[in-house]
Amino acid sequence: MMEQDWHETKIRVRYKDTDRMGLVYYGNYFTFFEVARSEFMRDFGYPYAQIEAEGYNLVVTEASSNYHANTKYDALVIVKTMIRSVKRVRVRFEYRVFDEKDRLLVSGHTVHACLKTDQKPARIPAKLKEIIEKAARS
Amino acid sequence: MMEQDWHETKIRVRYKDTDRMGLVYYGNYFTFFEVARSEFMRDFGYPYAQIEAEGYNLVVTEASSNYHANTKYDALVIVKTMIRSVKRVRVRFEYRVFDEKDRLLVSGHTVHACLKTDQKPARIPAKLKEIIEKAARS
Amino acid sequence: MMEQDWHETKIRVRYKDTDRMGLVYYGNYFTFFEVARSEFMRDFGYPYAQIEAEGYNLVVTEASSNYHANTKYDALVIVKTMIRSVKRVRVRFEYRVFDEKDRLLVSGHTVHACLKTDQKPARIPAKLKEIIEKAARS
Amino acid sequence: MMEQDWHETKIRVRYKDTDRMGLVYYGNYFTFFEVARSEFMRDFGYPYAQIEAEGYNLVVTEASSNYHANTKYDALVIVKTMIRSVKRVRVRFEYRVFDEKDRLLVSGHTVHACLKTDQKPARIPAKLKEIIEKAARS
Repeated sequence: MMEQDWHETKIRVRYKDTDRMGLVYYGNYFTFFEVARSEFMRDFGYPYAQIEAEGYNLVVTEASSNYHANTKYDALVIVKTMIRSVKRVRVRFEYRVFDEKDRLLVSGHTVHACLKTDQKPARIPAKLKEIIEKAARS
Repeated sequence: MMEQDWHETKIRVRYKDTDRMGLVYYGNYFTFFEVARSEFMRDFGYPYAQIEAEGYNLVVTEASSNYHANTKYDALVIVKTMIRSVKRVRVRFEYRVFDEKDRLLVSGHTVHACLKTDQKPARIPAKLKEIIEKAARS
Repeated sequence: MMEQDWHETKIRVRYKDTDRMGLVYYGNYFTFFEVARSEFMRDFGYPYAQIEAEGYNLVVTEASSNYHANTKYDALVIVKTMIRSVKRVRVRFEYRVFDEKDRLLVSGHTVHACLKTDQKPARIPAKLKEIIEKAARS
Repeated sequence: MMEQDWHETKIRVRYKDTDRMGLVYYGNYFTFFEVARSEFMRDFGYPYAQIEAEGYNLVVTEASSNYHANTKYDALVIVKTMIRSVKRVRVRFEYRVFDEKDRLLVSGHTVHACLKTDQKPARIPAKLKEIIEKAARS
């Protein structure tokens, strides 16, 4: 897994994201993951809104974070994202959140199951598989 | 408008609700209003989930807050709620948020338009009108 | 008040921002206002984080929204922001949120009181006054 | 680990908690964990607010969820919470979220490091250790 495999999304920390400790509330990093995943998909030509429009949902089945450091209001964090693996009905995203000084704040992952809109498990759409292969090659 | 006209809901301030000022983030009071409105409807025998199940939405068309004081993590706030007026397709809720020492924190209101699920304006359901009259009498 | 008086911030609607109606939750527009206000301040050379670092808070005393239309996941909204008035200790921001087709979604405002970190009212910092005048002229 | 080891907190799902899939947004379960952890501490006589007042923070270092099923607006979920282990400076909470029909929705855990307010690691306060032992015996 080489450095260039990671897609990057920048997110500005909102006042709303902070809590009374003055830092980003731990659960909000999962929103940052969502934003990064969404931008990843868009940049690879298959926006998540389109996946849903085509009758699929990528439902989260697992989410996990390790918190190494934290940051504060108005910081510009960089979320590095990649797809680690893709199985018949599941896909796993990896995330690394850095601050502007390249300090690792949070590492995490999410696993998603592909469902048809009727909530039945479905194979990952072929187009998504292609993107993943494209991402892996890039 | 007498004191007994107000319905009361208690809400515990979550860590998530606070921001780096150490107090409740201003936008979160609109979530408190939602919770109070929801408990109001439930206590008057017509849960909002049921309204939706019957094909209606009460879409917010106006929301406003005045902030007099604020409170912190773990405070137990009391949201007093009443329906101020109901028109053909609109209903207006009033809110007063107090802390445990009966200090007024926030006063506000929301106006809702009744829509059928097809997004067309609809008359307020008769059952909701009855509840409002019941609330006004109590 | 001319068109060019408005500062513009683009915000991508997150999945997190939506609710079960499939549209942006009403209270989240107040977060969009915060983001827009923050970018406004940054672009005029006085980031809000700096205001706080200098010992001031601009505490929200009033917030209001009118909802004309709504939008969905992944939409790119444009929040137009301006400072409507500035008094001794208060400043009022106006917001207009548009979708990509220039349809007005939400109009609103917030009023902020300037406090020193000890929670005592304070005059609006001179530097902020200058920015407001600069913004008004631009 | 027996059934009676679990502390229970009920949480009503808010409209705000849902997303356009009509179900609870995955990241919001971490807020539910926070609420449950907070009620756990309160019921064992040592509210988290008091821990902070005494100069400690229990900073989250790890958070993880497995999503088995999901639920919708207005559901009353039960969060079962227990402390799995406590080390010199770390404590681990386990969570199981059920719906009203006792269906397991989410299982997860968080790990917290004890810091003094100056951000230096500190031993878990003796009082918290006592609570944990009390909880383990109950």
